[in-house]
Amino acid sequence: MAQIGIIGSEGAMGHALARVIEDAGHTLSGGIDRGGDAAALADASDVLVDFSAPQALDANLHAAIGAGVPLVIGTTGLEDRHHAAIDEAARAVAVLQTGNTSLGVTLLAHLVREAAARLGPDWDVEIMEMHHRRKVDAPSGTALLLGEAAAAGRGIDLAAHAERGRDGHTGARQEGAIGFAALRGGTVAGEHSVILAGEEERLTLSHSAENRSIFARGAIRAAEWLIGRAPGRYSMDEVLGL
Amino acid sequence: MAQIGIIGSEGAMGHALARVIEDAGHTLSGGIDRGGDAAALADASDVLVDFSAPQALDANLHAAIGAGVPLVIGTTGLEDRHHAAIDEAARAVAVLQTGNTSLGVTLLAHLVREAAARLGPDWDVEIMEMHHRRKVDAPSGTALLLGEAAAAGRGIDLAAHAERGRDGHTGARQEGAIGFAALRGGTVAGEHSVILAGEEERLTLSHSAENRSIFARGAIRAAEWLIGRAPGRYSMDEVLGL
Amino acid sequence: MAQIGIIGSEGAMGHALARVIEDAGHTLSGGIDRGGDAAALADASDVLVDFSAPQALDANLHAAIGAGVPLVIGTTGLEDRHHAAIDEAARAVAVLQTGNTSLGVTLLAHLVREAAARLGPDWDVEIMEMHHRRKVDAPSGTALLLGEAAAAGRGIDLAAHAERGRDGHTGARQEGAIGFAALRGGTVAGEHSVILAGEEERLTLSHSAENRSIFARGAIRAAEWLIGRAPGRYSMDEVLGL
Amino acid sequence: MAQIGIIGSEGAMGHALARVIEDAGHTLSGGIDRGGDAAALADASDVLVDFSAPQALDANLHAAIGAGVPLVIGTTGLEDRHHAAIDEAARAVAVLQTGNTSLGVTLLAHLVREAAARLGPDWDVEIMEMHHRRKVDAPSGTALLLGEAAAAGRGIDLAAHAERGRDGHTGARQEGAIGFAALRGGTVAGEHSVILAGEEERLTLSHSAENRSIFARGAIRAAEWLIGRAPGRYSMDEVLGL
Repeated sequence: MAQIGIIGSEGAMGHALARVIEDAGHTLSGGIDRGGDAAALADASDVLVDFSAPQALDANLHAAIGAGVPLVIGTTGLEDRHHAAIDEAARAVAVLQTGNTSLGVTLLAHLVREAAARLGPDWDVEIMEMHHRRKVDAPSGTALLLGEAAAAGRGIDLAAHAERGRDGHTGARQEGAIGFAALRGGTVAGEHSVILAGEEERLTLSHSAENRSIFARGAIRAAEWLIGRAPGRYSMDEVLGL
Repeated sequence: MAQIGIIGSEGAMGHALARVIEDAGHTLSGGIDRGGDAAALADASDVLVDFSAPQALDANLHAAIGAGVPLVIGTTGLEDRHHAAIDEAARAVAVLQTGNTSLGVTLLAHLVREAAARLGPDWDVEIMEMHHRRKVDAPSGTALLLGEAAAAGRGIDLAAHAERGRDGHTGARQEGAIGFAALRGGTVAGEHSVILAGEEERLTLSHSAENRSIFARGAIRAAEWLIGRAPGRYSMDEVLGL
Repeated sequence: MAQIGIIGSEGAMGHALARVIEDAGHTLSGGIDRGGDAAALADASDVLVDFSAPQALDANLHAAIGAGVPLVIGTTGLEDRHHAAIDEAARAVAVLQTGNTSLGVTLLAHLVREAAARLGPDWDVEIMEMHHRRKVDAPSGTALLLGEAAAAGRGIDLAAHAERGRDGHTGARQEGAIGFAALRGGTVAGEHSVILAGEEERLTLSHSAENRSIFARGAIRAAEWLIGRAPGRYSMDEVLGL
Repeated sequence: MAQIGIIGSEGAMGHALARVIEDAGHTLSGGIDRGGDAAALADASDVLVDFSAPQALDANLHAAIGAGVPLVIGTTGLEDRHHAAIDEAARAVAVLQTGNTSLGVTLLAHLVREAAARLGPDWDVEIMEMHHRRKVDAPSGTALLLGEAAAAGRGIDLAAHAERGRDGHTGARQEGAIGFAALRGGTVAGEHSVILAGEEERLTLSHSAENRSIFARGAIRAAEWLIGRAPGRYSMDEVLGL
């Protein structure tokens, strides 16, 4: 049983993580939020789980390195410089960063990559997601993760092919585009569909989360897996043996 | 059996209309496209069906009035001034303008209006549509028609509450908003879903068209119904007795 | 604030009801399960909520009558003789029996009735539901409730037109049939879709429950509404003002 | 360009095949239906495409062997003895038999097999299909094909684990079961969904056919691929390079 520390402990994911840690028989070594002392938390933990904010990332990485404890990062909204910092930290400790910690989504991304590769550019890829009314960004991090999987399957660059937020006189769909659409409403925990639309037939690959606890369970599973690993940057695929 | 003239005869809907006219035992009095002589067509017809373009509307209305024949208008992309011109023409002849001629969509709009009225503003309304890759505008005319139905049920103004093309840092959903999302791909004839998302439950009201012929059949049904009517502006609801 | 007694307090719905009673500021006057004393519970309560089993119904009705307290019945699997007993009891106390206490499903049934009435027998009605892997009967009580709504809209008898559990050489669909299909798996709280399939177009009216608490909230809302009502048999429609 | 013969030429698929043969620039060498002379048709053809009935299979195989021409078999409702006859014939000519000739369904079966293998028996597999009101058997051949893919991924025998046509007091879902549900109505060309339902999350992999021509196109693509192949029994996977 492990000592697990939560960074971002006051958010909805923080609370869900605390419940899963208890349910799984681990010990919650502590939790911090904005301005908390990550270094002290790291010293008291076998592994850290971070669902806080991009601004806190540098301090969190620094704390993990200082204490020599691995770190699971589920924070969304990371930019290129954050990823560079993660790569740098991964030379000293084991780090796993992911846009989605659920088993189902991780597998879905695999299937999307394979389908996009097999069907080729004649099949149009569209990605649709729905989340609760309080979500502040679009598309979701998971939708982008699925878009990256489709782009990888096609061997193209997502940024150069994304069609986001269609509205008004858009003109016909660009050949090879990957479209995104975002729905918001109610208390929806998270639904994603990847549609591959060909000539008179369609393939739709979807994931539906009933509540947030699946993400917390996946994150704790990743944390368990990460303890004792050599320094390096890992992914959910490895946790799940994909 | 009626003499029916098609305006916009070279488009996909024009071809579908010609097939339905034949299948239904009517006579195709003729068809015109860009620059064709609407007045001559009107003189030869018992009713006109227009699926052309907003730019042609004035000439088409003028031709209908001149010949005293009723007119079904399925053209999309109409603006306020087009609607004003239709209202004016409806003082002289029977005119039916609609964003969607299918029986299913007409009923769906009814159900959406009722659901939005009953559930009230605590339930978030989202409207999603998917069409083939060649469609050039978003949201679809039918999606807007469904949005108007929801707004009418709520007693609010659609333009003031529409959230279209979400992308980037959107902030949380506005209270009372009606959201729109557009998917494009393949050869999809037309799919629309209106989602009403409440606290931990969701109602989804959807329509799916297998191909364009349902729109042609509905338009011809409207044309049959319109022959012999007094001058005025009519709707699909009246055709269907809703 | 009311004193509310739960019959069937040890089941999943019983636990959900207890949470909602507390959250809503009411008092839980007590809870009984198999073999508990319904008469004593009724004496201590302003209203009873029964999610137990058909076998317990007679005792529960008797207790409600004896104490003169109203009763909400959400028990499933009721047969004709149970309904007769409820009708009899409703001459002495206020009783509300329903196959589904959620606001969304109650409205869905309304919309289904209207759609079935408007579209007529040319549109085939199919009802599909999915529930968690532990559910022991099929179709769900809610699916049957929706089937009754469709049958009422058509003016036909459901029992004479139901097609359930298709398998093997079924022959073509019977004209006017109402079909049922049941999916089971995972932890799905409850999903229902009513499909009206016409010539080349389809209307789908669906409800999705994220978890069981919506049913508990609806039941407590019904219980609040029932306190002080005259003897009689009431429905969710009346609670919701439909 | 090839000479292609159709067996079952009077059915809906027969007509669709004839259109695709013409559109693709091939020559229709002829078509036969109940009681037609398969031997003469085989002599006049480079390849045969059979969408007739199980009763005609022996004569069709005999004709193909006699003329030394390959054969695509899309007939549904085949039993073990039919498959044995096909295996026998495949020693003399190239034969491709499949429950579904569409590219999308062939890929879907691949994805289902992989998902079932990766997720393991904790995720419940359910297969749902909808077809037009005239379909006489359930589940569809394609649903069974998808069930076989799921069973192969799990390493279990489908027949021993299928739960079909749930109705009445079914008891809880059997561990490891693969469920089937059939919807019928309207003019639906064919929709299939494979649902993998886990603890609080769900993966859904679906295919939707807009009309029958996709099956005809896939069958003709298979026929083109089969010409000139060595004797043996082939599958759609090989045609598509999966």
